[in-house]
Amino acid sequence: MSDTQRPKVTLVDTSLRDGMSSVSHQFTPEQVAEISKGLDKAGITTIEVAHGIGLGASSIQYGFAAATDPQYVRAAVEATNQADIAVLYVPGIATLAELEAAIDAGAKTVRVAVHCTEADCAEQPIVWAREHGMKVMSFLMMSHKLEPAALAEQAAKLDSYGAQVIYVVDSAGAMVPKDAGARVAALRDEVKADLGFHAHNNLGVGIANALTAAEEGATFIDGSLRGLGASAGNAQTEVLAAAFERAGYDTGVDLFPLIDTAEHVVAPLMKEPQIVDETALILGYAGVYSTFFHPTKRAAKKYGVKERDILMELGRRGVIGGQEDMIIDVAAELAGRGEYATLSAAVSV
Amino acid sequence: MSDTQRPKVTLVDTSLRDGMSSVSHQFTPEQVAEISKGLDKAGITTIEVAHGIGLGASSIQYGFAAATDPQYVRAAVEATNQADIAVLYVPGIATLAELEAAIDAGAKTVRVAVHCTEADCAEQPIVWAREHGMKVMSFLMMSHKLEPAALAEQAAKLDSYGAQVIYVVDSAGAMVPKDAGARVAALRDEVKADLGFHAHNNLGVGIANALTAAEEGATFIDGSLRGLGASAGNAQTEVLAAAFERAGYDTGVDLFPLIDTAEHVVAPLMKEPQIVDETALILGYAGVYSTFFHPTKRAAKKYGVKERDILMELGRRGVIGGQEDMIIDVAAELAGRGEYATLSAAVSV
Repeated sequence: MSDTQRPKVTLVDTSLRDGMSSVSHQFTPEQVAEISKGLDKAGITTIEVAHGIGLGASSIQYGFAAATDPQYVRAAVEATNQADIAVLYVPGIATLAELEAAIDAGAKTVRVAVHCTEADCAEQPIVWAREHGMKVMSFLMMSHKLEPAALAEQAAKLDSYGAQVIYVVDSAGAMVPKDAGARVAALRDEVKADLGFHAHNNLGVGIANALTAAEEGATFIDGSLRGLGASAGNAQTEVLAAAFERAGYDTGVDLFPLIDTAEHVVAPLMKEPQIVDETALILGYAGVYSTFFHPTKRAAKKYGVKERDILMELGRRGVIGGQEDMIIDVAAELAGRGEYATLSAAVSV
Repeated sequence: MSDTQRPKVTLVDTSLRDGMSSVSHQFTPEQVAEISKGLDKAGITTIEVAHGIGLGASSIQYGFAAATDPQYVRAAVEATNQADIAVLYVPGIATLAELEAAIDAGAKTVRVAVHCTEADCAEQPIVWAREHGMKVMSFLMMSHKLEPAALAEQAAKLDSYGAQVIYVVDSAGAMVPKDAGARVAALRDEVKADLGFHAHNNLGVGIANALTAAEEGATFIDGSLRGLGASAGNAQTEVLAAAFERAGYDTGVDLFPLIDTAEHVVAPLMKEPQIVDETALILGYAGVYSTFFHPTKRAAKKYGVKERDILMELGRRGVIGGQEDMIIDVAAELAGRGEYATLSAAVSV
């Protein structure tokens, strides 16, 4: 099959944004430059950079980054020839002033990310960014929480605000391929924007979810080199490139420079490999956002209950970001029940 | 959906056979016992043990194991209550005398593995094993090398010999889900035996290939705890269990004891994590069997050419196990060409 016959997908790399979570937001502008240069050379056309939680997140709450967002953006812009540099904008954390500073530093694309039921919150930054000439992508985070039709209604709002690419985002890595495919298919019927998919690998199927999303019409696929990202990490960009090629797609990227950057630039900077360990697996299986893990660990210890029992219960209750107080409620409740009541009595002497 | 409505799949664990490759065949019988006990408790019904290359492979050529095959089998048999213990039989390496010794040690299942074009070689051991009351599974290794229809012809032979489960084996991790699905579908139409799928994760889609294989009718799915196995490793058993459950299947296993064994017994024994690094990715992308990697490394150095250029050329030529001499031919040829000729001249002073 010649390249002209192959369906095209665009790989977007988020090693330097979502991947920042794996290094506690401590990449330096020099490292951002070096990795961006490798991605640019390999033909990646959109590179997302800055704090793992997006613009304005460098703080005591989300962790301080090694540099400011504009410093990261500028470093990436100066290191690249063809790629657009993108920033993440989470309403409630980022401000338009910070987005303006990112534009001044050279950012061309913004990705506005909202919880999947809260598309309304994206209107102001999407409209503003389009008026300021940016390319606008928008994320429906924790998309596994909504059935396809309900998710498509939210996507239709993003579409009406002017988002040019709308992403199904599997923040908790809780989807299997048919879940990803069904959601993208539902969006395809409701929006005129291009569609994207952002995977996490907690159930070991991040790349496969991306492949299935593409079969259903997603043309923007997120990844990160070596899978860099919270808990199990993202779909691994260089593996996405190989797998999509083998599956008959034209990604427009050169595999070997991408591998070189992953192997020789990113890998030596990683503190630990991106694997599916117990924590990562339980978060995906329970469908709970990664940020819940550490508070859960503390609550489990305090109440003498198992972390995974808390996480499974939180998953059943469908908690979302911002509801971290429920961790304590669940832990306390579990501690009062059956086997735990006995255990609790035994340890509360 | 209740468990009675869910399609059933049987997870077969090969942490203690294929996974032996990750620890240079150095698991002790005590470790084999402890891991087998955890798998048995979690409800895994078939556990494959012994040298990574199968019965009789402990040698200077394939590496000496820490114990004999019957010692490993006996350790696993004694540690388990319900699970069958299986051994791998590669014609040309294993002998029937060794299989008999494995039976004496308590093995109930044999998995007869042949290259995908060489089903004939499986006749003698399959017939013998059935006559001796064993459950017989049979592997078509490197299944990506044959188109679905041709693979099904080979499977029909294994079926005629009496194999009760016939596996599509993606030895090089070279398949994407549609490749796996197409092969299983082709076999389904040609054989009466049950079907199995054995994945490697070189293209990051091992678990997804297994899911697609199951959609097409495979009911036996191989995995290993923490993904233990050559290069990128196998599909990760505990992640398979979670992903298959989320995809609507009944695996009959308890997820949490499986995770406990992976996390607290296997993980501490691993020398390195199972990740998709450059080597693993290139082997899968080129479709070359893992055993070619180290000789390729040596040839690359000797001839001043890149490992990956040799591997890609070997993939194009469709080499199979036993053709390791072609590595030198390819390296020498590449060294005489274009950019390499110049480089070669430069270094041959």
